[in-house]
Amino acid sequence: MQKVVVNTETPYEVLIGAGLLARSGEIIADAISSEKIALFGDDTVYGLYGERVAASLRGAGKKVYPFVFPHGESSKRAEYYLKGLDFLAERGFDRTDAVAALGGGVTGDLAGFVASTYLRGIAYAQIPTTLLAQVDSSVGGKTGIDLGAGKNLAGTFWQPRVVIADTDTLATLPENELFNGIGELIKYAVLDGGEMYSLMSEGFTGREERVVTLAVDSKRRIVEADEKEGGVRRLLNLGHTVAHAIEKLSDYTVGHGAAVATGIAYIARASRKRFGLSSRDYEAVAALLKKYSVEEYSAYGVKELCAAAAVDKKTAGGYINLVVIGKIGGCRTEKIPMTELEEYLS
Amino acid sequence: MQKVVVNTETPYEVLIGAGLLARSGEIIADAISSEKIALFGDDTVYGLYGERVAASLRGAGKKVYPFVFPHGESSKRAEYYLKGLDFLAERGFDRTDAVAALGGGVTGDLAGFVASTYLRGIAYAQIPTTLLAQVDSSVGGKTGIDLGAGKNLAGTFWQPRVVIADTDTLATLPENELFNGIGELIKYAVLDGGEMYSLMSEGFTGREERVVTLAVDSKRRIVEADEKEGGVRRLLNLGHTVAHAIEKLSDYTVGHGAAVATGIAYIARASRKRFGLSSRDYEAVAALLKKYSVEEYSAYGVKELCAAAAVDKKTAGGYINLVVIGKIGGCRTEKIPMTELEEYLS
Repeated sequence: MQKVVVNTETPYEVLIGAGLLARSGEIIADAISSEKIALFGDDTVYGLYGERVAASLRGAGKKVYPFVFPHGESSKRAEYYLKGLDFLAERGFDRTDAVAALGGGVTGDLAGFVASTYLRGIAYAQIPTTLLAQVDSSVGGKTGIDLGAGKNLAGTFWQPRVVIADTDTLATLPENELFNGIGELIKYAVLDGGEMYSLMSEGFTGREERVVTLAVDSKRRIVEADEKEGGVRRLLNLGHTVAHAIEKLSDYTVGHGAAVATGIAYIARASRKRFGLSSRDYEAVAALLKKYSVEEYSAYGVKELCAAAAVDKKTAGGYINLVVIGKIGGCRTEKIPMTELEEYLS
Repeated sequence: MQKVVVNTETPYEVLIGAGLLARSGEIIADAISSEKIALFGDDTVYGLYGERVAASLRGAGKKVYPFVFPHGESSKRAEYYLKGLDFLAERGFDRTDAVAALGGGVTGDLAGFVASTYLRGIAYAQIPTTLLAQVDSSVGGKTGIDLGAGKNLAGTFWQPRVVIADTDTLATLPENELFNGIGELIKYAVLDGGEMYSLMSEGFTGREERVVTLAVDSKRRIVEADEKEGGVRRLLNLGHTVAHAIEKLSDYTVGHGAAVATGIAYIARASRKRFGLSSRDYEAVAALLKKYSVEEYSAYGVKELCAAAAVDKKTAGGYINLVVIGKIGGCRTEKIPMTELEEYLS
C-alpha cells in the first residue's frame, strides 16, 4: 500500500494498493467518527463491490445506508442530487454523519456535491473504482453535476476526509474506461517528466500501484499550491481545452481520456510551432502518444474545435488560459485571446 | 452611512444608511468587476425597488439580468434553485460574472446558494431590504434552501463581496416582518449588553441606523471568531432552540422574530433557575421583552417543544448546545443531553 497525504485546509490521506476494499470500513472509521454513513454507488459498481464495502463498514461499527442509482453520466444531474439530499434528510442524518462515494467520477462528483451542501457540509470519503477517478478526482475536491446547458456547471470545492484507491478494482474496468485514466496519466508524464515519464514510456498495463501513486502525488503538488483553481492549477488543464471541444462535438461519444490525449497532440504541435518546444521533446511526446495509440487529429476541423472551446466554461472574459509545453516536465499557461486560438492550433 | 468591515477569508463591507439603493450600482461595481450581473428578487420587492437598482447597475456599466420569482418562503426550494442555475447557464454567465440578491432572507439564501455553486462559486452582492436580513443574514455567509424534510437542510457557506443595507427600505415593511428583525435585535441586546441594550431599552422605532449597525457589528465579531460555525458562533442561537420548535409546531404561522423573542423568555427563566442569571438581570430581560410585547409563553407545552427541538438539525449526537444567559452581556453555551432539556425549560 502507498500513501499520499494531501495538505488542504484539513489534511487527508489517499491510500493506494491492492485489496483495500476489504479494509475500507476500518480506514473510514479512523478518518470519520460518524454513526451513520450513506454509501453512494451506481447499480453496476454497487453490484460488484457494494456489499463488500458495506460489510466492512458495518464491521467497523457504522450504520450503512446504501443509495444506489442508475449507472452512466446521466445520473450526474439535478434529479439525483436532490434525491441524494432527500435521502439523507429522510433518514435523519445530522452534522456528525457522513457520505461515502463508491465508484467512478460520476459517483464521486454527485456524492461529494450532496455531502458538501447537506446541512452546509458533512464529511465524506471517496472509494474510487476507476483509473480516472483514482488519478484525477481523488485529489482537488471538485464536486458537481451537469445542467441542461452543459457539464459540471454546478458544484463546489469540498475535500474528502480519506480516499481509498483499491487497484484491484481496475481489473474489472472496460477498456474505454481504462483509457480514460491513461489519457490523464499521459498528461502527468508530460507535465512532470522524470520517473512518471519513464514508467509511462515503458508501458502502463492497467494497475501498477507506483504509476497511480505518482499521478496522485503530482496532482497533489499542483492542488496544494493552488487549492482554489487560480494559477498553477490551470496546468491540470493540459490538453483539456481541445479535449472538451472534442467531447462536446462528438456528443460525448469520444471518451474523456482519448479526448485529452488527442488534445495533448494538438498542444504539442502548437507548442513546437509557437511556444519553444524543442524538436527532441516534441518527438518524445509524439512517441508516447503513439505507444498508447492516441489519435493525433480529431474528426473535427480547427474552426469547429475553437468555436466549441469558446463557449467552454474555462474561458474568462474573452481570454483563454492555454496550457502549453515548454519542455517535457516544463509546462506553463499562456493567456491568449480566444480569437487567436485558431491560429495556434492550425 | 455607516460601515462594518467583515474580515472573513476575503474581507467585505456592510454599508448601512438611508438612500443607498440609488448608489447600489457604483458600490457593487467597486467591489465586483463582472460584466454581467443577475439580479435576484421576488415579485414584491422587485416591483418596489428592482428598477431603481437595475438602473443604478446599468449606470455603473453592468449588463443586468433580472431573475424574478414568487414571493414567500416557498420559493426557497429546489425548484427555484435549479431555475436560478439554469438562468445563469443559459445566459452564458462565466466565472467572472456575478449575482446580486435584492430582498429578504429567502432571496439572499436562494441567490447565495446559486452563486456559491454555479461554476463552483461566483461573486455575489447582497442588498437586504428587510430588518431581519439586514441584521442577520448580511453577515455569516449562510446560504441555503428548504427540503421536503425541513428548512435550510441544503446550503453552503459563501461570503458576499459587499452588502448594501438601505434603511429606507425598512419603511415599507409590514409590521410582522419588522418584528422578525426586532426579535434578533433583542437577542443582540441580551448577548452584548452595553449600548445595544440601552438603545433597545429606550425603544427601536423601525429604522435607526445606529441600532442596525451595532447588531451587524455584533454578529461580525462572533462570526469572525468562528467563521465555520463551531464554537462561539453558537451564541447566535440564543433563543433559537425553542424558537425553531415554536415555528415548526405552529407550521410557521408564528414569525421568526416573535419565536426568537419568546425563546429568549424561556431561556431567561431557565437561566434564572439553573445557570446563575441574577434576579436583577432577569427582571431587566423581562422588562425588555415586555417593552416589545413579546409573548412570555408559547401556545405549546414544554414536552411538545422539546420533542420538536429533538429533531432539529442543531442537535448533534443526542446532545444540544443550549445558549444560556449568565448575565446581560454574558451568554455562554452549555452542552446538555436532549433528555434533560425538558427539565431546564419547565
